[in-house]
Amino acid sequence: MSENLIVVGGVAAGMSAASQAKRRRPSLNVTVLEKSEFVSYGSCGLPYYIMDVVKKHTDLIAITKEKFKSVRDINVLTKMEVVGIDPKEGKVRAIDQNEKKDVVLPYDYLAIATGASPTRPPIPGIGNHAIFQIRTLDDGLAIKGYIKSSHVKRAAIIGAGYIGMEMAEAMKGLGFEVIVVERLPNILGGMDGEITSVVERTLEGNGVRVLKSTEVRSFDRKDSGMIRIETTGGSFDVDMVILGIGVRPNSEIAKSAGVVTGEHDAILVNEKMETNVPHVYSAGDCATAKHILLKKDLFIPMGTTANKQGRIAGANISGANEVFKGVAGTAVVKVFDLEVAKTGLTEKEARDNKLNAVATTITSKTRAHYYPGSRPITVKLVVEKKSRRLLGAQMVGGEGVSKRIDIVVAGLYKGMTIDELSRLDLSYAPPFAPVSPDILAPANDAMKKV
Amino acid sequence: MSENLIVVGGVAAGMSAASQAKRRRPSLNVTVLEKSEFVSYGSCGLPYYIMDVVKKHTDLIAITKEKFKSVRDINVLTKMEVVGIDPKEGKVRAIDQNEKKDVVLPYDYLAIATGASPTRPPIPGIGNHAIFQIRTLDDGLAIKGYIKSSHVKRAAIIGAGYIGMEMAEAMKGLGFEVIVVERLPNILGGMDGEITSVVERTLEGNGVRVLKSTEVRSFDRKDSGMIRIETTGGSFDVDMVILGIGVRPNSEIAKSAGVVTGEHDAILVNEKMETNVPHVYSAGDCATAKHILLKKDLFIPMGTTANKQGRIAGANISGANEVFKGVAGTAVVKVFDLEVAKTGLTEKEARDNKLNAVATTITSKTRAHYYPGSRPITVKLVVEKKSRRLLGAQMVGGEGVSKRIDIVVAGLYKGMTIDELSRLDLSYAPPFAPVSPDILAPANDAMKKV
Repeated sequence: MSENLIVVGGVAAGMSAASQAKRRRPSLNVTVLEKSEFVSYGSCGLPYYIMDVVKKHTDLIAITKEKFKSVRDINVLTKMEVVGIDPKEGKVRAIDQNEKKDVVLPYDYLAIATGASPTRPPIPGIGNHAIFQIRTLDDGLAIKGYIKSSHVKRAAIIGAGYIGMEMAEAMKGLGFEVIVVERLPNILGGMDGEITSVVERTLEGNGVRVLKSTEVRSFDRKDSGMIRIETTGGSFDVDMVILGIGVRPNSEIAKSAGVVTGEHDAILVNEKMETNVPHVYSAGDCATAKHILLKKDLFIPMGTTANKQGRIAGANISGANEVFKGVAGTAVVKVFDLEVAKTGLTEKEARDNKLNAVATTITSKTRAHYYPGSRPITVKLVVEKKSRRLLGAQMVGGEGVSKRIDIVVAGLYKGMTIDELSRLDLSYAPPFAPVSPDILAPANDAMKKV
Repeated sequence: MSENLIVVGGVAAGMSAASQAKRRRPSLNVTVLEKSEFVSYGSCGLPYYIMDVVKKHTDLIAITKEKFKSVRDINVLTKMEVVGIDPKEGKVRAIDQNEKKDVVLPYDYLAIATGASPTRPPIPGIGNHAIFQIRTLDDGLAIKGYIKSSHVKRAAIIGAGYIGMEMAEAMKGLGFEVIVVERLPNILGGMDGEITSVVERTLEGNGVRVLKSTEVRSFDRKDSGMIRIETTGGSFDVDMVILGIGVRPNSEIAKSAGVVTGEHDAILVNEKMETNVPHVYSAGDCATAKHILLKKDLFIPMGTTANKQGRIAGANISGANEVFKGVAGTAVVKVFDLEVAKTGLTEKEARDNKLNAVATTITSKTRAHYYPGSRPITVKLVVEKKSRRLLGAQMVGGEGVSKRIDIVVAGLYKGMTIDELSRLDLSYAPPFAPVSPDILAPANDAMKKV
């Protein structure tokens, strides 16, 4: 008799796990249970959908549930909310929201890919209908619907992280006045000041007001329908609010079934994506990922990690023996005409982890000095003093940042020293890089320092 | 008494060697002898100068000879043609073309950075005044002068290598009819067919006629002043010709002084950039470079290599102990709206070197499927079967190729396997890459094959 794989969650990790398991072991009966009505969509594209750069919400969907059935023979059940897991019996309990009834489904293997949900702090008035989070396609539809039906002129973004930056650009692109409120003294909390100061200048240049070290005290509905935001740095009125203050893993149901969690209550997985409970795997934004430099299981939810972990969970469920080697904490974000990226450890993170590191920051150009269209690019490298090993890089610039950071990613995975980085035979042609490619100058500088 | 360093050649390698030696050991007396009247210019920018993308030839100059004197205290003597080296006496003999007289200069250290010269095969009629080579700033001025003073309508490029491709785009950009004649059955001889076929379609789409497997028999001056080119594939008339059929190292004077040469008669250097003759160093396009995969000393002249080798020669002359770790054969070229790049070995090169390799080629997109402006990108990976080690990559696409290739460069230097490549935590955001970044798909595919 064929065995059952049940996958809980139908976005990046879930669909990767389902597809990989089915492809490698066609006899598996694969069923995906998804709480919303959408599966397999690119949630990272939501800011661009709201900005009208992506025209239809269906454009974000990679593969429809009908295609999953017809092409891959995977059953996708939407509007199915899993409410309980019984590992002893090998069963999941779900509420079928279509027909408002309980269902119980048996599994031989279970893959938990329930993702993460936006944090909603208990600030007075946070329940206001014009305060939005942005995570799921439903969230995107809600925001877009509100913008279409209301006369939005001013929007506030709470939180100046990656999503906050993307939403600031999106809202500005729609012609709104935009104000960003950040609790910390720095935007893009994970990056060092040499990089964020460049981003701040661009935000300012594009008319985005940024309030740092500022906490929201309350949201109050005014008679005009506007929201008054009281902060530690004064109050102001806006037509809508986007919350971008982080996410927490959706691990409650797993926990209540005895699955052990780790940092921030993310589901703790080993390198095979197994949880502590036999036959129960987890992957994606609800799970931990091993950091290759810190050798710790951390909660760093990222779309690409979800894809990779999902694929490995699916492969191992099918009987393979694959391992997830871990993450480097790589991230890239577009902020107006800038690309901003990081990988590995920032200088602050290196210090927090008691590593003896030196850092060097150099601003150069993206093309040969005589080739038109060249843009400034700032590269910061962090190097461990004794071993001369690369610990991380951060970059901000007008073009090519997202790929230049990946050179360092490759280096981090292979224990590359700063000396080795400085000697790489990197590609060069005048339209693409200066003759001494921009990443080599800081490498040479860092070499002198260590 | 302070010692003398004489550097022969004042472009990439020569100026890097001079600057590095002087910076590290300020007591050195550094003199650069340059045959032409220009030093420290970006010869890779010449096609863009001819195309009028770079407006003035002086824009190509990074640092003037006056600046070298005033800022770096380096003596630069231009129009000084070195005609002999006497290692026993420690002297170089040169002709001062300014004053038409012989000079003899003593040296304690000598750095030979004489570069390479375009090949001019003995084809009948090749001496025609409208047949140009393109290597030095003088060559660029000659071509630009001819175009300005003549009514050029049709141009032929002989050779479909990197320079040939750049010149085809430049000539087309000036509004000329362009025909490219290539002796081999393939354009961009160093690359495999999956990549070159994409480039050929773009050339065709831009109205460039390409004749492959076609040899030039003769150039004949017609009464109209045009040049009739007789080839194995028919004859045609053009107003001017650009030769782009490779270069040979300028090593004659070194050889006659007892310096040993290697592949293609390039000056053989060790990893410290020393020749076999004590106190005589060499760097750049006149010298060999160790290939990191083939472990052979090869002639692969490249501007970035010249810079790196020059810097290392200068450092070691100053008393340091630095080594040049070798090249990976990386190259990138812009051909109209395409970026074309390679690093490491092609499938053919792997086979020629008796390596048991498998290759995989996948065409994907440069951005998330829903993000506008996405362009196709074709990635070919070559992997050694037994060790699963990456041997090389070739890429062609609309954007980001020049940086994606560098991920593989980093991998080649660190012995990365295809499995390791497929697991890298590469950067992702919808405007910059698909969620499973384009280089990972061929990596996953190659993994299945090996």
